[in-house]
Amino acid sequence: MSGDRTTAVLLIACREQKGLVAAVSDFLFRHNGNITHADQHTDLQEDVFLQRVEWELRGFAVPRDGIAEAFRPLAERLQMTWSLHFSDERPRVALFVSKLPHCLFDLLARWRLGELRADIPLVISNHDDARPVAESFGVPFHCLAVSAQTKARQEERIAGLIAGERIDLIVLARYMQVLSAPFVEEYRDRIINIHHSFLPAFAGARPYHQAHERGVKVIGATAHYATPELDQGPIIVQDVARVSHRDAVDDLVRIGRELEKVVLARAVELHLRRRVIVYGNKTAVFD
Amino acid sequence: MSGDRTTAVLLIACREQKGLVAAVSDFLFRHNGNITHADQHTDLQEDVFLQRVEWELRGFAVPRDGIAEAFRPLAERLQMTWSLHFSDERPRVALFVSKLPHCLFDLLARWRLGELRADIPLVISNHDDARPVAESFGVPFHCLAVSAQTKARQEERIAGLIAGERIDLIVLARYMQVLSAPFVEEYRDRIINIHHSFLPAFAGARPYHQAHERGVKVIGATAHYATPELDQGPIIVQDVARVSHRDAVDDLVRIGRELEKVVLARAVELHLRRRVIVYGNKTAVFD
Amino acid sequence: MSGDRTTAVLLIACREQKGLVAAVSDFLFRHNGNITHADQHTDLQEDVFLQRVEWELRGFAVPRDGIAEAFRPLAERLQMTWSLHFSDERPRVALFVSKLPHCLFDLLARWRLGELRADIPLVISNHDDARPVAESFGVPFHCLAVSAQTKARQEERIAGLIAGERIDLIVLARYMQVLSAPFVEEYRDRIINIHHSFLPAFAGARPYHQAHERGVKVIGATAHYATPELDQGPIIVQDVARVSHRDAVDDLVRIGRELEKVVLARAVELHLRRRVIVYGNKTAVFD
Amino acid sequence: MSGDRTTAVLLIACREQKGLVAAVSDFLFRHNGNITHADQHTDLQEDVFLQRVEWELRGFAVPRDGIAEAFRPLAERLQMTWSLHFSDERPRVALFVSKLPHCLFDLLARWRLGELRADIPLVISNHDDARPVAESFGVPFHCLAVSAQTKARQEERIAGLIAGERIDLIVLARYMQVLSAPFVEEYRDRIINIHHSFLPAFAGARPYHQAHERGVKVIGATAHYATPELDQGPIIVQDVARVSHRDAVDDLVRIGRELEKVVLARAVELHLRRRVIVYGNKTAVFD
Repeated sequence: MSGDRTTAVLLIACREQKGLVAAVSDFLFRHNGNITHADQHTDLQEDVFLQRVEWELRGFAVPRDGIAEAFRPLAERLQMTWSLHFSDERPRVALFVSKLPHCLFDLLARWRLGELRADIPLVISNHDDARPVAESFGVPFHCLAVSAQTKARQEERIAGLIAGERIDLIVLARYMQVLSAPFVEEYRDRIINIHHSFLPAFAGARPYHQAHERGVKVIGATAHYATPELDQGPIIVQDVARVSHRDAVDDLVRIGRELEKVVLARAVELHLRRRVIVYGNKTAVFD
Repeated sequence: MSGDRTTAVLLIACREQKGLVAAVSDFLFRHNGNITHADQHTDLQEDVFLQRVEWELRGFAVPRDGIAEAFRPLAERLQMTWSLHFSDERPRVALFVSKLPHCLFDLLARWRLGELRADIPLVISNHDDARPVAESFGVPFHCLAVSAQTKARQEERIAGLIAGERIDLIVLARYMQVLSAPFVEEYRDRIINIHHSFLPAFAGARPYHQAHERGVKVIGATAHYATPELDQGPIIVQDVARVSHRDAVDDLVRIGRELEKVVLARAVELHLRRRVIVYGNKTAVFD
Repeated sequence: MSGDRTTAVLLIACREQKGLVAAVSDFLFRHNGNITHADQHTDLQEDVFLQRVEWELRGFAVPRDGIAEAFRPLAERLQMTWSLHFSDERPRVALFVSKLPHCLFDLLARWRLGELRADIPLVISNHDDARPVAESFGVPFHCLAVSAQTKARQEERIAGLIAGERIDLIVLARYMQVLSAPFVEEYRDRIINIHHSFLPAFAGARPYHQAHERGVKVIGATAHYATPELDQGPIIVQDVARVSHRDAVDDLVRIGRELEKVVLARAVELHLRRRVIVYGNKTAVFD
Repeated sequence: MSGDRTTAVLLIACREQKGLVAAVSDFLFRHNGNITHADQHTDLQEDVFLQRVEWELRGFAVPRDGIAEAFRPLAERLQMTWSLHFSDERPRVALFVSKLPHCLFDLLARWRLGELRADIPLVISNHDDARPVAESFGVPFHCLAVSAQTKARQEERIAGLIAGERIDLIVLARYMQVLSAPFVEEYRDRIINIHHSFLPAFAGARPYHQAHERGVKVIGATAHYATPELDQGPIIVQDVARVSHRDAVDDLVRIGRELEKVVLARAVELHLRRRVIVYGNKTAVFD
């Protein structure tokens, strides 16, 4: 019924109340679940309880197909928002890129090396520059150039491709076009963007120029879920690097490129391993 | 019976087995415990389960004095090693120092500012240099000079002072004398030492000279519990700083001083907040 | 005429032009100067050349009192802005604080331990809370409470104290009053402020609350020279620390406190060792 | 005679003596050199002076082919060890790999994206696993399996390939075979190895297992020039990452993989941009 090491993951959010951990751990214990990871968090200010629990399917008394059903009564009694995942699922990921291919290249290399548990059926771009990169990995590349006139129609085509490929996660790997609010809403918490600054500093255009102008001593990169408000969505991962007066804008771009790759890859990997719960405009990252 | 915000903390270690989390959370839930922090870890290699759980005394159905008794049957059934603490306890801490007073000064300043929840009834040194520092904080200073001839007798006097003051935790804040194996054994897991290198690199004497000689690009500091084997005990906190060819030994000493202060203070604070469980020659730090 | 290890430091800024390094190094070589540190930077965007050079007085052919005069013709020919310093000078520093004393305590401890080459003749505050800290170090404490009505008059008194003590550097060690533009202008590049965020993120009030609200994964602290525009002055040092969803505002405050101390102390120490040149709204830090 | 932005780089090492900076900057000034980067370091302990200076060929009064000749008299008078490089040269680099291809993949991706100014005419391995990676970048792959019996002969073949391709730099990108002392000596300061620990901690085999066993809280990676003594050569770059009790050996491997890629790429890039001078068993990195 299940492979040797396959695990199930429950992500849970609900109003804080006593006995939540006891209820979930009792559910798993009664069915002989072997927990391999459990973590929880109570946000007292928001009065929210969040939990991630992962256990082995092997030996679990409930068959894989029946787990959701078995858990539902408990979830309804405690008014949980929840989702159930399995470690052998392979989410379908679409990569979006504009001209700069370093994040695209990095994600595809990780995927090829088996570091990302996902399928990547397509790359979408508004320029043709990254085509050789996508194709060298055997991934179909769709160039959908965008102008003010064509923007709406091209997004429709994008939506069609995404739906056609049953995409679970969109990764904006330095995609410099703004997606429409309805599109973003439809894929809420399933679009990860990399912004090349330490948000909320230097939101908007040309953050490295802004950082250089301001004379900062540290630059950063931020991976966040996209929301209709540009650069305002829930932050997943941030990282920074030291810079000095010696670093011209070009140096910031070069140093930042490393940050962007690492920060975006870490966020995508956390999402794929079901380590992230979004609540309000924040994330809990159970790493 | 208990103040508004006072909490109880259970630290638990035992053989890994199913139902541990369920058993403990059920115990707290049945007695109406309001959990404020819970974290656990299973070391599959060592087959060890570790848990830290903290809950408010207010509203808890078992009176403070009865909690240990109430928990004992469960602990015995599951063969737990465990300890119970309360957030309004003030552990008694002895600070040891030799000539360099920066860590001593830093710890006393934090203590004065209320950042360390502890009493500090004495400072012990093998030199008289740090006396003004201790006394400016109103802490009695005991100078016990040590030579090859007097070492054993002086340690006896130290043991007497420690016992007399009912010390819970000894902090070696750049104390450059080696304590005897029996003394260290008696205070196992209750002596925190700061070593001025990134252990296991540069154990032993003059680590900054060793680091400079080797031409490393990063230096570090390590806070660990003392064991009879010098610089081999369970590591609590480590941190590092970048250095370059420009940094002479003196610069490493200066840069390292910052690391030593921060790393030692963090380790002491984690210990005092009962965030550390020692198992084997390692620590789990539930921060 | 000069002690064994005393050094002279030249800080130079001018329009970029060929031969600048050659001119300065030739000046020192002709007078038998033993250079112990030399660093320079050309900002091509601003067309500015900056240099710091340090050499031993021992053996230098020009007597200490004559160095400025000897250097002036060269400086005038190349239209340099420059200043000359000696390592045995002790700048006079005033510390300003409001209620939170951790930065004050940290700076005074470093001063006591000989890490800051300066005199500290007074502490100024708008509250009386930090008086015991200042006095435990034997430093006179001036409490100048400020209200809307008394603000102007109190600043006059502050200006009088600063002038009376011939203060070279003002350090705002978590001083929460805004100083007037004329006062700040008078001490341009001689007032160092610590802002408890990673500027330009979270300028203004309550940055830790802002950071928590935004759900950032990294927090920071910024030491900068004060300018009449709040939190906009030239940045000297920034540093950051990781945080997570587990960290409430109180935790950010606690973690940030460490950053504030370290960042402010590093900036003050760099300024005192004449390692900083301000140009435009930026700094070059020759560390 | 020279392209627009082409620069020359001088790397200089010699006994410390007065007037070195003056002599070199005067040489460049007299010939109308426009310096774009200059940095120097005096190691007082070793009595060594090191300098890196870079200037534009455009406008320089000495033709490119005559620079070495023009500089030689000065170099001989001051007994310098020196080398001259040009920014439009493309060093020839050989990549060595065993089974784990992440560093190889990372270097080839950077090369493809134009981040490494070099030619890469071949990849050498003792296993066939990485062949598809090399070939997807169009780089010839040579598999030279090694056993105790064949080791000497295979190294001869390697030496032949390296010589045949006129290789300037060998990069051991997780190549797990030890090269013979004569081979290493022949390419002294031209073989860069990545060791997956924070040297000198955990030299030798299986450093992540060693690190896990010791319970460290930080792991690292070290890029260094190979010398006949394993893991003892001059360190170029080190970096570290935090780990905790939660991280099993597999996690350390995963986290360390990121470090290895970044540290090795940074070292290779610094070497190719002529930013590194080796002296004694150390490096000066003028970044």
